[in-house]
Amino acid sequence: MNKLGHEMHELCKKLFPICRSITGDGLRQSLSILNLNLPNMELYEVPTGTKCFDWEVPEEWNINNAYIIDPTGKKICDFKKSNLHVVGYSHPINKKVSLQELQDNLYSLPDQPDAIPYITSYYKKRWGFCLKHNERKNLQYGDYQVFIDSELKDGSLTYGEIIIPGKTEKEIFLSTYLCHPSMANNELSGPVVTTFLGKWLSERENHYTYRIIFIPETIGSITYLSKNLAEMQKNIIAGFNVSCVGDERAYSYLPSRTGDTLSDRAALHVLKNRYPGYISYSYRDRGSDERQYCSPGVNLPVCSIMRTKYGCYPEYHTSLDDMSLVTPNGLYGGYEAIRQTIETIERNETLRATVPCEPQLGKRGLYPTISSKTSSIQVKDMMNILAYADGNFDMISLAELTGKPLWELTPIIKTLKEEGLLEEVKR
Amino acid sequence: MNKLGHEMHELCKKLFPICRSITGDGLRQSLSILNLNLPNMELYEVPTGTKCFDWEVPEEWNINNAYIIDPTGKKICDFKKSNLHVVGYSHPINKKVSLQELQDNLYSLPDQPDAIPYITSYYKKRWGFCLKHNERKNLQYGDYQVFIDSELKDGSLTYGEIIIPGKTEKEIFLSTYLCHPSMANNELSGPVVTTFLGKWLSERENHYTYRIIFIPETIGSITYLSKNLAEMQKNIIAGFNVSCVGDERAYSYLPSRTGDTLSDRAALHVLKNRYPGYISYSYRDRGSDERQYCSPGVNLPVCSIMRTKYGCYPEYHTSLDDMSLVTPNGLYGGYEAIRQTIETIERNETLRATVPCEPQLGKRGLYPTISSKTSSIQVKDMMNILAYADGNFDMISLAELTGKPLWELTPIIKTLKEEGLLEEVKR
Amino acid sequence: MNKLGHEMHELCKKLFPICRSITGDGLRQSLSILNLNLPNMELYEVPTGTKCFDWEVPEEWNINNAYIIDPTGKKICDFKKSNLHVVGYSHPINKKVSLQELQDNLYSLPDQPDAIPYITSYYKKRWGFCLKHNERKNLQYGDYQVFIDSELKDGSLTYGEIIIPGKTEKEIFLSTYLCHPSMANNELSGPVVTTFLGKWLSERENHYTYRIIFIPETIGSITYLSKNLAEMQKNIIAGFNVSCVGDERAYSYLPSRTGDTLSDRAALHVLKNRYPGYISYSYRDRGSDERQYCSPGVNLPVCSIMRTKYGCYPEYHTSLDDMSLVTPNGLYGGYEAIRQTIETIERNETLRATVPCEPQLGKRGLYPTISSKTSSIQVKDMMNILAYADGNFDMISLAELTGKPLWELTPIIKTLKEEGLLEEVKR
Repeated sequence: MNKLGHEMHELCKKLFPICRSITGDGLRQSLSILNLNLPNMELYEVPTGTKCFDWEVPEEWNINNAYIIDPTGKKICDFKKSNLHVVGYSHPINKKVSLQELQDNLYSLPDQPDAIPYITSYYKKRWGFCLKHNERKNLQYGDYQVFIDSELKDGSLTYGEIIIPGKTEKEIFLSTYLCHPSMANNELSGPVVTTFLGKWLSERENHYTYRIIFIPETIGSITYLSKNLAEMQKNIIAGFNVSCVGDERAYSYLPSRTGDTLSDRAALHVLKNRYPGYISYSYRDRGSDERQYCSPGVNLPVCSIMRTKYGCYPEYHTSLDDMSLVTPNGLYGGYEAIRQTIETIERNETLRATVPCEPQLGKRGLYPTISSKTSSIQVKDMMNILAYADGNFDMISLAELTGKPLWELTPIIKTLKEEGLLEEVKR
Repeated sequence: MNKLGHEMHELCKKLFPICRSITGDGLRQSLSILNLNLPNMELYEVPTGTKCFDWEVPEEWNINNAYIIDPTGKKICDFKKSNLHVVGYSHPINKKVSLQELQDNLYSLPDQPDAIPYITSYYKKRWGFCLKHNERKNLQYGDYQVFIDSELKDGSLTYGEIIIPGKTEKEIFLSTYLCHPSMANNELSGPVVTTFLGKWLSERENHYTYRIIFIPETIGSITYLSKNLAEMQKNIIAGFNVSCVGDERAYSYLPSRTGDTLSDRAALHVLKNRYPGYISYSYRDRGSDERQYCSPGVNLPVCSIMRTKYGCYPEYHTSLDDMSLVTPNGLYGGYEAIRQTIETIERNETLRATVPCEPQLGKRGLYPTISSKTSSIQVKDMMNILAYADGNFDMISLAELTGKPLWELTPIIKTLKEEGLLEEVKR
Repeated sequence: MNKLGHEMHELCKKLFPICRSITGDGLRQSLSILNLNLPNMELYEVPTGTKCFDWEVPEEWNINNAYIIDPTGKKICDFKKSNLHVVGYSHPINKKVSLQELQDNLYSLPDQPDAIPYITSYYKKRWGFCLKHNERKNLQYGDYQVFIDSELKDGSLTYGEIIIPGKTEKEIFLSTYLCHPSMANNELSGPVVTTFLGKWLSERENHYTYRIIFIPETIGSITYLSKNLAEMQKNIIAGFNVSCVGDERAYSYLPSRTGDTLSDRAALHVLKNRYPGYISYSYRDRGSDERQYCSPGVNLPVCSIMRTKYGCYPEYHTSLDDMSLVTPNGLYGGYEAIRQTIETIERNETLRATVPCEPQLGKRGLYPTISSKTSSIQVKDMMNILAYADGNFDMISLAELTGKPLWELTPIIKTLKEEGLLEEVKR
């Protein structure tokens, strides 16, 4: 079995039980665990009340325990059994309420009666519990003791950042989010695959500089952008939002807003050649941090390569999105699709033939010395590269023009560069 | 039933019996009747012999009576019964002719033997009569008395013009023609619908200035252009030739020469969203005053929204194009399609989001405070507008990108502008 | 029967027996025969060793005789019977070899056992014979006397060039190759059709200057380019590689590298309108001198119009490509397709209407004086030309916009220019 896939799966399992939110100790603890794998990660704390464009960093939320005692004295909606039972950012409470008042603060899914839904109320103070609809239907008339041992206070929003320098200041950007409690495909697959991409990138020589961030979704990306926008707009030439990369059902592509950036072209080249059954979404189906990265005032070239997309699988945002959904093979597939796309961009030179006309390949041992009907077919890819390399096409375009994946052309291009017949013109 | 449709139908009926041509008293009388509905219309007279580019204004033609007395003494081709019986611009005549000489001056339609054709000879002096082919077949050998009491003389070409000032000097242009005798869809539907569009525009506050003209076809538009070309090229941002807008069979679109002007984009947006069964023609199917407005040296952004297009219905240019073909519903449909297109252009701002990233809609009461699986779907249109409003797209483009008609986005845009989250960048 | 086709066929037959190669007396003799038909052709000799970009002119090769004596004393692979029996550029040899050593120097086609293949080894010194696979299978064990009376020496590469001056220095370029021994469609059809195109061009007044060259393939075009590149890049506005234009099976089109040059547009206009069953290839299917002309550092607008394309017919590069494959009708069809394409470019003006609006055609006798339902249909092409001639479209575009072939519009355009209603704006 796949070693890397198993390592990623183990890391998911370690993170799974922690109760994360957009701020707080669960988020800090999760980042610390990732930090063990990526020692060059730096952690940042942004204080409550910090202005971030149209937003501000909210109060920090922490929770120790929560449950309900029903009229018969039974403990239900026990936070210790599933952290999804509590509405995220619930304020503390400890009081007796009627069934009717309780119902106003319960959330369940009639269409998925055995799933606990994932619900939050970050920006309006509330308390609430989530439970299986089948359980809710059996609640008896009477008084309920509701207990939430949580805290909302001035604190900070935590995020992690790694910069891996390359030969150029131009950057490839990876962003993943870490703010959901116990859910697996959305979200733990994202930060875990990103962690392993960071490890791979840290161990090789890269042409580009890499900026990799682990943030809470929405408020985290907005906070990060508000601190780094000018530099990011100056340097980032491609970027990927890493989310939902752990199940085995599908490969999915969600474009950037304009749909024609280098990120999009590289992602599509890999998907078409390696995973031709992939599902292609529209930017109108967006739903993660590309909403910020591709917004009109930010306009970064960010798209997403996923396994099954958020919102498109039944377990999404419920307790059913658990560690049985995410597999070593699923994680490894998500990792590989993004890794290959990054490698495609690393290799994506723009090439120019150095001599007018075809070069004499025969004298270099690169062309059959006997000329027959089929001579040129044997060296067709080499001849095609030389025929199209006019300094206007990058290798992705050249690969698509010649109908071959870029990685099959790479060794030929290496040879031709060594022979002085091709040169890189710019990037 | 539809009040406006009935008013338009009544006006058609009043105009129907008048014998119009490209000059003369029938045209003047018709314009006077429209003037009652549009008091701000100005009438112009352009003298015979006035040079208009490659053309000149012809002699004025008027007619009082015409008929033929057959060998048995019976009156046929009686102008009093149908003004289509006389070839337009026939010179006066009163003489006895043989059946053979008469035949050389008769026009009928073998394929439509019960229709009187509409025939003119504006630029070569002739006399002639039009009749049903079934009637013609029964003409007996013998002498015929032909009588046409008409006059050709130095006079003038008459046209009407209304300018309705708006907030900007930039203009939307409406042109309709008035030069055919008793025919209903082509032509009375055009000037009548245009009159009611003029009334509607006179009673509201407009962003654009409106230039509306009632002219004889071809020579009228050439004459008008020769007097106003520079100003029109400077100000007109969109225009429509209004013709054949009174029957109930179809909606039709004939593009401008280039096919990509603001007029075309607005017309297609309305037709696709409101009248999806519309027929799309090519500019090669043109046949009315867009031939002048879109000509290489003029190059105005003029297209046509019609009901059944001229030349594409069997009654066209015959006595069968009468008031049974044009209906209150037909006229109202033609009026509405053009009115909505004008309104679409009036509302067609170019928008830019004012803050980087998504704004925090929740604190403005514009976003659900509980975040669940379906939160973002409830505000999808609002989120899409903010996501695409980068200052490069006008609202028609934005509507087409988001898959919604512009008029459904208008109230959302109003809200976002009031919140300071969107701004208009130019027009 | 077709006189021109027969003349071309006779010329092919005269050239057929000569043993040509990329250098040598066979090439010189063939060029002399063509020179009789084109007295203004100049012949050039480029010495062995001359540097041409990445290449150099090779030694000159001549051959008098060659054969093998088999163990029974029988003469086989007799050069006097077919010059294809000897591998091109074989060095001289006269020795006894075993069957095994002989086999290492034999070439045959198991899939086409009755065809002698065409094999060369220009840039690696070898000797070799080609024969039918059926003959090879019968070779007996024993010793074979191999005899090749050839010579490799410092000499020169020969080519022919004609410049036919026109009204402008801008050039149309025709290139054809002459380097194959006895083969008919590939290659003799090319130089013979080009010779007759040269005769036709020499006898008429041309707008463009014509540069026509007869060269050995690959090394010849590279040599010619290395001497004339700057001038060619400055002047050539269209060009055609003339090859495989003699059989009756197909018409074929191979685009230039970019596919959108004037050559491509004219070729496609002729093929679509005259030979709609033509086969369209991709530039990736290239295989002749367009490889040099369209290479990134050269970048000339050269495409190919062929009958059955090289590599796409079973007889290609074997003894079966003989004078039974190439016919008078086949040659005439190839000649006509290219001649019409040249004529299309000669006629391809860019036009502008001289007056705003439609001109009054009636007063010039160009429009029906009686206006009825069908008046405008009778002059539809004329009206379309005037409607689109805005100075931005050349006549090929205008013809494609109006759905008519250019040559049907030519007389109408002539009339409109005489009337002063159209003018040429540039070329």
